[in-house]
Amino acid sequence: MFKEWEKLSQGSAIALDEYLSVLKYNEQGLIPAIAQQHDTGEVLMMAWMNEQSIRETLKEGQVCYWSRSRQTYWRKGESSGHRQRLVSMRADCDGDTLLLLVDQQGAACHTNRRDCFYFEVQQEQVVVLNDVDSGLA
Amino acid sequence: MFKEWEKLSQGSAIALDEYLSVLKYNEQGLIPAIAQQHDTGEVLMMAWMNEQSIRETLKEGQVCYWSRSRQTYWRKGESSGHRQRLVSMRADCDGDTLLLLVDQQGAACHTNRRDCFYFEVQQEQVVVLNDVDSGLA
Repeated sequence: MFKEWEKLSQGSAIALDEYLSVLKYNEQGLIPAIAQQHDTGEVLMMAWMNEQSIRETLKEGQVCYWSRSRQTYWRKGESSGHRQRLVSMRADCDGDTLLLLVDQQGAACHTNRRDCFYFEVQQEQVVVLNDVDSGLA
Repeated sequence: MFKEWEKLSQGSAIALDEYLSVLKYNEQGLIPAIAQQHDTGEVLMMAWMNEQSIRETLKEGQVCYWSRSRQTYWRKGESSGHRQRLVSMRADCDGDTLLLLVDQQGAACHTNRRDCFYFEVQQEQVVVLNDVDSGLA
């Protein structure tokens, strides 16, 4: 389907149920979802969703992932308060990755850094860019 | 290792070889890599790397992925000319995702849209945001 859909012009629409049924989930039924702060463009984190967590996120407007380590739904911020309000959900050309534009409250990372990408991989070494708790208001 | 490393303070350094040896590659030896335009913040695409393509990308300064469909190294832009110059490579808190800050020449998407995330997933439908070839200069 994605080969056909890639020719569609701006404004064309596909029914949600059809679209979600052909997204390319992996063997565990999961698809990677990148979370980006909608106004600043910061890439905050990447996690995984299944079809049910996609539907819940669209319905509730709060991001719900699937936790691979805990094997359960992970309503971001439920315990930490660092919730992600969904602004817009996007999918890519071949339907194997999601991009979530969100409004992140506080720190996205469990270390309380603003985002999870705090290691810079250089030629000979990897450097830590931010301190623990640096993403707290 | 990542549990220990998450407490490291800003400016701490880890040797590259050690770091790359503990990154969490999947069963195929691959790790997802998000490409983001370094100055505008646009999320352009997501693709996959293995350890060798990470090392080549760091050495050459041009992004090299592993193509899962073609099962070969994929030097972005080699045929299209739409190359990605690496500005900075990041890795996340638990070492299972890379973020590449790049300078993208032309379109990142094979449809010649600027980025691959041109489907907006709404409540009832999915809407195409951009036309084919809209990312060509």
